[in-house]
Amino acid sequence: MIEHLFTSLDNHFSEMVKIRRYLHMHPEVSFKEVKTAKYIYNFYQKLGVDVRANVGGNGVVATIKGDNSGPTVALRADFDALPIQDEKDVPYKSTVPGVMHACGHDGHTATLLVLAKVLFNHRHLLNGNIVFIHQHAEEYAPGGAKSMIEDGCLDGVDVIFGTHLWATEPVGKIQYRVGPFMAAADRFELTINGKGGHGAQPHKTKDAIVIGSQVVANLQQIVSRKVDPIQPAVVTVGSFVAENAFNIIADTAQLIGTVRTFEEDVRKQIEEEIEKVVSGTCSMSGATYDYQFVRGYPAVVNHLDETMFLIKAAQQVPGVELIEESPQQMGGEDFAYYLQHVKGTFFFTGAMPANDTDAYPHHHPKFDIDERALLIAAKTLCKAAIQYQLEYSSS
Amino acid sequence: MIEHLFTSLDNHFSEMVKIRRYLHMHPEVSFKEVKTAKYIYNFYQKLGVDVRANVGGNGVVATIKGDNSGPTVALRADFDALPIQDEKDVPYKSTVPGVMHACGHDGHTATLLVLAKVLFNHRHLLNGNIVFIHQHAEEYAPGGAKSMIEDGCLDGVDVIFGTHLWATEPVGKIQYRVGPFMAAADRFELTINGKGGHGAQPHKTKDAIVIGSQVVANLQQIVSRKVDPIQPAVVTVGSFVAENAFNIIADTAQLIGTVRTFEEDVRKQIEEEIEKVVSGTCSMSGATYDYQFVRGYPAVVNHLDETMFLIKAAQQVPGVELIEESPQQMGGEDFAYYLQHVKGTFFFTGAMPANDTDAYPHHHPKFDIDERALLIAAKTLCKAAIQYQLEYSSS
Amino acid sequence: MIEHLFTSLDNHFSEMVKIRRYLHMHPEVSFKEVKTAKYIYNFYQKLGVDVRANVGGNGVVATIKGDNSGPTVALRADFDALPIQDEKDVPYKSTVPGVMHACGHDGHTATLLVLAKVLFNHRHLLNGNIVFIHQHAEEYAPGGAKSMIEDGCLDGVDVIFGTHLWATEPVGKIQYRVGPFMAAADRFELTINGKGGHGAQPHKTKDAIVIGSQVVANLQQIVSRKVDPIQPAVVTVGSFVAENAFNIIADTAQLIGTVRTFEEDVRKQIEEEIEKVVSGTCSMSGATYDYQFVRGYPAVVNHLDETMFLIKAAQQVPGVELIEESPQQMGGEDFAYYLQHVKGTFFFTGAMPANDTDAYPHHHPKFDIDERALLIAAKTLCKAAIQYQLEYSSS
Amino acid sequence: MIEHLFTSLDNHFSEMVKIRRYLHMHPEVSFKEVKTAKYIYNFYQKLGVDVRANVGGNGVVATIKGDNSGPTVALRADFDALPIQDEKDVPYKSTVPGVMHACGHDGHTATLLVLAKVLFNHRHLLNGNIVFIHQHAEEYAPGGAKSMIEDGCLDGVDVIFGTHLWATEPVGKIQYRVGPFMAAADRFELTINGKGGHGAQPHKTKDAIVIGSQVVANLQQIVSRKVDPIQPAVVTVGSFVAENAFNIIADTAQLIGTVRTFEEDVRKQIEEEIEKVVSGTCSMSGATYDYQFVRGYPAVVNHLDETMFLIKAAQQVPGVELIEESPQQMGGEDFAYYLQHVKGTFFFTGAMPANDTDAYPHHHPKFDIDERALLIAAKTLCKAAIQYQLEYSSS
Repeated sequence: MIEHLFTSLDNHFSEMVKIRRYLHMHPEVSFKEVKTAKYIYNFYQKLGVDVRANVGGNGVVATIKGDNSGPTVALRADFDALPIQDEKDVPYKSTVPGVMHACGHDGHTATLLVLAKVLFNHRHLLNGNIVFIHQHAEEYAPGGAKSMIEDGCLDGVDVIFGTHLWATEPVGKIQYRVGPFMAAADRFELTINGKGGHGAQPHKTKDAIVIGSQVVANLQQIVSRKVDPIQPAVVTVGSFVAENAFNIIADTAQLIGTVRTFEEDVRKQIEEEIEKVVSGTCSMSGATYDYQFVRGYPAVVNHLDETMFLIKAAQQVPGVELIEESPQQMGGEDFAYYLQHVKGTFFFTGAMPANDTDAYPHHHPKFDIDERALLIAAKTLCKAAIQYQLEYSSS
Repeated sequence: MIEHLFTSLDNHFSEMVKIRRYLHMHPEVSFKEVKTAKYIYNFYQKLGVDVRANVGGNGVVATIKGDNSGPTVALRADFDALPIQDEKDVPYKSTVPGVMHACGHDGHTATLLVLAKVLFNHRHLLNGNIVFIHQHAEEYAPGGAKSMIEDGCLDGVDVIFGTHLWATEPVGKIQYRVGPFMAAADRFELTINGKGGHGAQPHKTKDAIVIGSQVVANLQQIVSRKVDPIQPAVVTVGSFVAENAFNIIADTAQLIGTVRTFEEDVRKQIEEEIEKVVSGTCSMSGATYDYQFVRGYPAVVNHLDETMFLIKAAQQVPGVELIEESPQQMGGEDFAYYLQHVKGTFFFTGAMPANDTDAYPHHHPKFDIDERALLIAAKTLCKAAIQYQLEYSSS
Repeated sequence: MIEHLFTSLDNHFSEMVKIRRYLHMHPEVSFKEVKTAKYIYNFYQKLGVDVRANVGGNGVVATIKGDNSGPTVALRADFDALPIQDEKDVPYKSTVPGVMHACGHDGHTATLLVLAKVLFNHRHLLNGNIVFIHQHAEEYAPGGAKSMIEDGCLDGVDVIFGTHLWATEPVGKIQYRVGPFMAAADRFELTINGKGGHGAQPHKTKDAIVIGSQVVANLQQIVSRKVDPIQPAVVTVGSFVAENAFNIIADTAQLIGTVRTFEEDVRKQIEEEIEKVVSGTCSMSGATYDYQFVRGYPAVVNHLDETMFLIKAAQQVPGVELIEESPQQMGGEDFAYYLQHVKGTFFFTGAMPANDTDAYPHHHPKFDIDERALLIAAKTLCKAAIQYQLEYSSS
Repeated sequence: MIEHLFTSLDNHFSEMVKIRRYLHMHPEVSFKEVKTAKYIYNFYQKLGVDVRANVGGNGVVATIKGDNSGPTVALRADFDALPIQDEKDVPYKSTVPGVMHACGHDGHTATLLVLAKVLFNHRHLLNGNIVFIHQHAEEYAPGGAKSMIEDGCLDGVDVIFGTHLWATEPVGKIQYRVGPFMAAADRFELTINGKGGHGAQPHKTKDAIVIGSQVVANLQQIVSRKVDPIQPAVVTVGSFVAENAFNIIADTAQLIGTVRTFEEDVRKQIEEEIEKVVSGTCSMSGATYDYQFVRGYPAVVNHLDETMFLIKAAQQVPGVELIEESPQQMGGEDFAYYLQHVKGTFFFTGAMPANDTDAYPHHHPKFDIDERALLIAAKTLCKAAIQYQLEYSSS
């Protein structure tokens, strides 16, 4: 059976590429993906697949009911683009100024649509349902996953699989990881409320720039001394603004930053340690502060059994040449939310352009992928879904 | 003779107040004092005093030739206003939105004009010439003094006296100081050139905010450890700007600040120490920097004999109740330039409003002065000039 | 066959305990383990096993030649104790004041001796030789492993297995880890050469305490900003000494510390980053420094295939209830050296005292182990050795 | 009359030198100056002058009653030496190993003794009494002045004069200063109570070295930002001790330092600011601290009228070629205590060796003075005392 599906996917490869390129030329940024959502919706409707639009925003969810009973498997693809100007010189370059699919979500979507088409054509073979979650707004917190879940996209789902086309790994490689895989990505905002004054009279002030600078320096000890060394963690101050004339002492300083962690206790610890640093540092000068720690996506924590299952499935996919453990990734993904509700795993599908000189990191203005990776992604998801239903169907 | 002049000044007090209030209502900011300069010029021309306009910019210089020979004494008053909104509730409130005489220069000008009028009327008594330097642009570097000197305002001058109405000291007090009195006020500009990147990947960047913060922290040791403790000095970073999204690591940081010193070697030392701190701090991260140290006004260094002379003169002025040494002032004054060319002294004339609740510091939106101070300033300058000519005329 | 060996080990359990307790009562610190080495040597000689003393110091190496040909398997146990006063209240408490087996090496030795005895009795079953490496001086760099290897202990060895009794994990648990498992443990020494002077005249000095403090503060950014966040790393300054009268400015400051890493490039990077921090910080004050980075044990990097092999072997050992991946350990082990020369793996054998209140961390004055763990360790090593010879013997 | 006294002093110059050299050869450290005190006591007793020993310790006070009534003038000389090895190559080199008059107190004493002898011989000329305060223990807090005052040495005294032979200024120069002249010299002691642990596990500790280093770095802002820039101030950490093995994290760190100020409010401010820095810094890590601020000598604050009086007196002393204002001195002096009780002034008498190559700073092992300075000091004190009695005697 699976061979049959693989062949069918092979036969649809050119369609996959066509869809991907169409989407690449018509990107829409997070939370504005109205036309893309409509495109997806129409695709399913034309096929005759049961599809729901506006799920938790611009999300689209299609469901193929298998003829036989068995577990419901969800597959997810995100479809938003980024506010980046496409600088590639290719025929399918973005037609929208300042907007670009610089993270491969166009490929995710094309993969899932074509896979859905193939599976719909073979729905008599399915032991259970397959839910296709087309998610908007992965790139921008609070993201689309959370609201789609709240709007029911996981109802009845037993397991979920998702992949990211990964342009820094070669085609043919699948990367997995059990447990914490991609980091929780949080934001903090900090205002130092000092007391301004004349630059020649520091003793009458509480210098917000000196205090802010001490805060930045003192924050370094959180990662270096306070967090367990085997726990990857980042505390970055990305913005420091106290703009004044040269002969003024700053009244306030605005600091904004990000925190990356993998474990809930470390995440909570750093939230608290930052405040300890800020509070202690301000107290030296009698300054006050406003501090907000705003949680973004939680860590993507892959489930053990489902990841092992995925590894085995991938071993049987033509074109997969290497399956290896990925290092932990400090970047975030709101796939994390799905894994808080159902079992599943998120993995990388190597998609590095064949020609080295065309290989750029994600979010780069010249980012591109090797489209053969779409086929591998489709087959791996296909094999995982079919096999999961086979093994776990009660029949 | 001097009693006669004092009486004449008394009789002109109401004119002094009238002029001061007129100027107060029509302020002009530094380097834009065209109408004020014209007003001053016209005043002298109407009197028939030899006057020159556009001296080194908007400066005006009048000269009264004494009937007898003797030294030439210069008296200086500045006449620019500040970009501050007048918030006082008085009939003579500024009529120009956002511009205000918040530093007493209106009073300086009225004092000098009326003193000139009185002395012109008694020019047969003068043993030498008196030069009235009406200087524009004291509030904003590079100031007016330097260019007026270059344009000849001190040619032939033997000694110079100047005063500042001082609203934080009571009327009747004169404050002097031998040697370094007001600070050199310099500016520095610093750009940290790090290497930006993603907030989750600090190891691929050179974090300009961390480096800039370390620079600010390390700059503190210049005043605390590097400069002779008996040398007053200030190094202030007034502006720190590295504005980015929360999840970015800053590529660059812009720091701007001021340095205050009293001695040339300390001034030079700090200019160099800042670069040592910046260079050493950047080197830790392999970052580069651009550093500029822009000299502003030098320190006002009063001459010993002329200051002692002024003290004695002030002792004989009616209304002067207390003559005391002023602490050193960290603020700057471009009177400094005159004292680099001729002997002289700069002193403070107490001008605090009688009613405590009306007393605000210089540059405050509600700043005002007690106008009786103008009369004391005029008499002190008068006495100093007349007495100096008496003592030092060769006849 | 293996069942037979397990039974034989069960039968010798009391001897194992007896030996362990004897060693526990007679501990010797690193590089002084003369009597212990003699004890081990005698044990083998009495059995008639081929044994060599004074291998690379106090090391002892015994070899059992199997009747059949096959690979040579090395098993290693360390036998030095620590300069810690035993505070336990047990009959087998240390009899040597201030010296104690507070890390379980007594257990390692007892395990290996009895295992050797059993295997010697069944040498007709062995497909290849088994080398018993009794290593001195694991606790104190440069350790005994390096010199024993140089003295030939690994000659002809094809694979090595070693275990550490782990008192913070329950009996029945085996912990493994592929790749970097225990950290490289290096030492650095730093002298800040400032310029001393009177405490009231900082401007005439280069304050070694201020510089040293800045170094410590700036070192924090190495782990927080310079090292890849997914790479566990520690930079600790353990000693800071600049001892003077209160009114003196320090001429020099001595800093000593440790660095922990898992990867060679990170290890090298930190060695260099420390010098960058020190050099940049000293340059701010024109101070000089002496810096030495002394490498200790490298990281224990377990080989993939051998670790997988060990896992499978352990699954068939009676008493092993749970086999799980260990987190990376920041502590060091000179087992690292063996793994640089031959394939192999190092693993933990849970040995936590049954009674929670008796559980103390390694190196604690009340440290003890559950002796049942010796039997599990012996069986796991036995199974690994036998099975390895079975699978890899050419016959 | 004064000419007569000057001539008499001239005639006793060789005795002055003889005494000074005797004392130089027999130095005694602070609080141990028993023989020196006895020497002084005997000198007065032999003369027949009223003298009291053991005043507030080893202090000696002699009183010459003038024949005529008038104010009582006190003159003070200190007589302790320092724990320094004399490295000069002169016949009068110290005979006591490790002890040396490296600060000129031997000269002070010789000056005062011989002046007393001369004045005693001319006591019929005195309009009032003269009290000779020979003070022990100036070099070591709490000093001798305080206890001598408590023991009555200033009873009945109207004014006090004292001088310090100053080896870095040429013979013939007198340096005075009105108001704050020499700094208050205080001590602080600080213990950081962190939580020790293994160097590889910072997250389980509160690293006292990191905290202590942050304290040192943060202390810099007290002088640079918190204290009025025109107020000279020093905060020095002279000792930082946290001695451990390289792989340990420090449990505690001991910091000791000194603070120098001239004004009581600044002194109090810094005492408080240090605690704010320590408290805020410790709070970041949850560490605790012990902080003690121990006041040493207060600032020497010369009285205006008495300083002016001294200047005039010095102008009439043969050998005085230059009288100038001294910069403020960051060093301390317990003459400060006398000036808290009675009017007076403390001044410097230039004593630099004629040969430049013999000029070393105070407390240097090769320190020496030009003995001609003793005569100038004696005449200046003599003139001040005699003139003061003349001017202020009621008759």
